[in-house]
Amino acid sequence: MQMNPNRDTQLCMSLSGRPGNFGLRFHNHLYEQLGLNFYYKAFSSQDLPGAVGGIRALGIRGCGVSMPFKEACIALVDEMDASAAAIQSINTIVNTDGHLKAYNTDYIAVAQLLETHAVPKDTSFALRGSGGMAKAVASALRDGGYKNGLIVARNERAGRALAESLGYEWQAELGARRPQMLVNVTPVGMDGGPEAGQLAFEANVVKTAGTVFDMVAIPSETPLIVMGRAEGKKVITGLEVIAIQALEQFVLYTGVRPTSEQFQKAVAFARG
Amino acid sequence: MQMNPNRDTQLCMSLSGRPGNFGLRFHNHLYEQLGLNFYYKAFSSQDLPGAVGGIRALGIRGCGVSMPFKEACIALVDEMDASAAAIQSINTIVNTDGHLKAYNTDYIAVAQLLETHAVPKDTSFALRGSGGMAKAVASALRDGGYKNGLIVARNERAGRALAESLGYEWQAELGARRPQMLVNVTPVGMDGGPEAGQLAFEANVVKTAGTVFDMVAIPSETPLIVMGRAEGKKVITGLEVIAIQALEQFVLYTGVRPTSEQFQKAVAFARG
Repeated sequence: MQMNPNRDTQLCMSLSGRPGNFGLRFHNHLYEQLGLNFYYKAFSSQDLPGAVGGIRALGIRGCGVSMPFKEACIALVDEMDASAAAIQSINTIVNTDGHLKAYNTDYIAVAQLLETHAVPKDTSFALRGSGGMAKAVASALRDGGYKNGLIVARNERAGRALAESLGYEWQAELGARRPQMLVNVTPVGMDGGPEAGQLAFEANVVKTAGTVFDMVAIPSETPLIVMGRAEGKKVITGLEVIAIQALEQFVLYTGVRPTSEQFQKAVAFARG
Repeated sequence: MQMNPNRDTQLCMSLSGRPGNFGLRFHNHLYEQLGLNFYYKAFSSQDLPGAVGGIRALGIRGCGVSMPFKEACIALVDEMDASAAAIQSINTIVNTDGHLKAYNTDYIAVAQLLETHAVPKDTSFALRGSGGMAKAVASALRDGGYKNGLIVARNERAGRALAESLGYEWQAELGARRPQMLVNVTPVGMDGGPEAGQLAFEANVVKTAGTVFDMVAIPSETPLIVMGRAEGKKVITGLEVIAIQALEQFVLYTGVRPTSEQFQKAVAFARG
């Protein structure tokens, strides 16, 4: 945060069921480094309409939206950016004089990472998961031109719906398929979850792939990523996703784009 | 503010038509000095129900309420403390798990100052003003046992109503009266107002009084206070009022009472 708050200080915030520390540390660190008169606060709420009404009434500049509010927010904003409209899921609200415009910077981050890691468009992939984040990731793949995709999800209804909406196949299990890119959008490998310490794809599947992309950020060195590195695969981590989505939120809120060095330092600080 | 905000940081705020810097500097300075994980933010709003709904939905711990919201808030809170109920005017909301209790720490501050400055109960006084703050001050005088009072207000309807509700006299002008205590609750002498630099009571009236009490805080050395000091009168300043009312808010929000030295340092910092 800025060291000397005053009456002109602008507030940004997050709204989630279980607030974490990454976003608030990332944003407040950059405010301080860049001398911006902003402060970032993490909130939880049992009353989403009241919370979004408060953002509007109090002139809170921006809000990061996490589980379980990403879909329910849609009815409460004034405008949907293409990134949020495409997947009907919001992770960012920008308040400009009471007009609330919604974005999805997860989608933006995944699209950016596929580009910066130079993943060829003809790469076949399997994506595990069928929730809101899976929708964002699969949509970014589809919109990025990745046509050869398989959605792997035990939840047949959600998995089929996601696959069909984007022109992909669906299977309950990977079976004999050996895709070139493995994308994990489930909690497998996440600290504190029921499948912490587990591989999101079987070892022999990892060995035959070229790229592993894991959305899990805590830890970002999941068993899948660790094995991918050990096997010399191209890896894209959940830390990269949450860092870039936070960066894009920062730019939307403040209008300022940090340098690459400032960004990397903020990520390191936010993790620490 | 606390130097390392995290997900457990609690927010307190102010809501006013024209936010100042005193409150946020006072509170944030004490949070830092006392190592409390709080942050204080000044807000304005055009939508009071939305703002108070936001306080509730976001779990904002406390809110200082200023002009023009002190009466309109009454319908939006769950409980009125005696300090606010007595004068039907709110300057503080405390949110405990979604239950909003309203206080008036201006009233509390005036009552305290009459005691700490040892103003005898049989002191006759004239009070200029008839607005919301005049109601708080006159009520504190009445409830403190000061029976010999005159309300001086050009607005006859408001002045008479205030005087009659408390058992005091009303006059449009002071006339030949020479009360022992002069209480200014108008903007006369306030920086930036139409009567900046002016005396709230005539010089000969100040000379015959024993005590002058001015609610104007910017500057706190108003012409009335300056002349009172020069004439050797007992003086009570608007700075003392805003400082003590802020201190009582701080105690309500945090449950912690700073030492006298911490309080004095916070006041000096907040003014600086």
